[in-house]
Amino acid sequence: MASRLSAISSVTPDIVATAELSVETKGAGFTDITRETTRFLAETGGRDGAVFLYLQHTSASLVIQENADPDVQHDLATALGRLAPENAGWIHDVEGPDDMPAHVKAMLTGVSLHIPVARGALSLGTWQGIYLVEHRARPHRRIILMQFIGKGR
Amino acid sequence: MASRLSAISSVTPDIVATAELSVETKGAGFTDITRETTRFLAETGGRDGAVFLYLQHTSASLVIQENADPDVQHDLATALGRLAPENAGWIHDVEGPDDMPAHVKAMLTGVSLHIPVARGALSLGTWQGIYLVEHRARPHRRIILMQFIGKGR
Amino acid sequence: MASRLSAISSVTPDIVATAELSVETKGAGFTDITRETTRFLAETGGRDGAVFLYLQHTSASLVIQENADPDVQHDLATALGRLAPENAGWIHDVEGPDDMPAHVKAMLTGVSLHIPVARGALSLGTWQGIYLVEHRARPHRRIILMQFIGKGR
Repeated sequence: MASRLSAISSVTPDIVATAELSVETKGAGFTDITRETTRFLAETGGRDGAVFLYLQHTSASLVIQENADPDVQHDLATALGRLAPENAGWIHDVEGPDDMPAHVKAMLTGVSLHIPVARGALSLGTWQGIYLVEHRARPHRRIILMQFIGKGR
Repeated sequence: MASRLSAISSVTPDIVATAELSVETKGAGFTDITRETTRFLAETGGRDGAVFLYLQHTSASLVIQENADPDVQHDLATALGRLAPENAGWIHDVEGPDDMPAHVKAMLTGVSLHIPVARGALSLGTWQGIYLVEHRARPHRRIILMQFIGKGR
Repeated sequence: MASRLSAISSVTPDIVATAELSVETKGAGFTDITRETTRFLAETGGRDGAVFLYLQHTSASLVIQENADPDVQHDLATALGRLAPENAGWIHDVEGPDDMPAHVKAMLTGVSLHIPVARGALSLGTWQGIYLVEHRARPHRRIILMQFIGKGR
């Protein structure tokens, strides 16, 4: 296997910073929260370390995906809809036909992730954006806990 | 997009605490480990930071999901069974027909996650529980490494 | 539920170390990066804490899975191919028929994970390996950001 490991940069951690981001979704689909995450990082003064995002819900999720072509987000939602269709004989249906599929989609895509931080910036890849994905049909207010662990300015 | 970022609370990290949780599963299904995670956190003395959970296996996984209606867990297991059925012509079948589906389910749901901690409590959403999900048919002993990174009391 | 929590071991964090691993994949499939992760950890001098891995791409992912039987990796790739087939009427097809399936597979398996570290070693389970999974048909150069947060020697 052809691989190369760069030099290591090392600092002493001196901050754990936490804030809460509240987002109003417009119903099923992707909401880009990259700008909000960048703003959080700037306000913490975090320079080197990592940002940790956690979503306090079970029918929405957090996903890092392509930010260039909106068709990708549309196709990703279609893919999830095929993996967890509404009319699949779910036992849990008291909250509506879109509820159980939403739980399955959230389980498959997750509510916890991190992004490295270097020199005060998120180390996202060129085509990566951070998305809150709403899996319920109707708009919801969703809470994301944002944390920075590392060295401040 | 309608969103709101709260004020930031910041502390200095002074603890990395680690322990091992051993769980006897009863065969395929969800085991709630929220209480055990809360107990771990209390014993570390962790106040502000995050708990990191890691499962040392490849045919079980860790999932944050609904803790209110047990039917949800049943339907989630059904969904995974449809995505990774036993009779799908798997090449790897020496460990039994439930083994390869178990690996696929573990890959899709993951073995690594974190939960934020504020004022000594896990910042779980109202309806969130932490689950060890056994994907093998028979009971297994599973090991979860629990860590707290942050500020202690 | 039968469970047992071990004694807690606690240290003071004094390092956040970061490096970049560049890997040339050979096209779709699993590349074992366990050795590279171990080497990174050794070079940081990290003793107790956790390693965090982050992949800067949206059509490849990071997976912890079985390292014993190569057939498992083959079956895992087959499973992903069934969940996200090429001829599924994707709207986004300008980058080739394997591109949109690759995004779906990356979304389902993720680009962010951690592995605990104890006494200078990765706390992987007996059968666990760390894999970069290429979802595009052709070879690509992929970047993984590796970090250690914890206590050094």
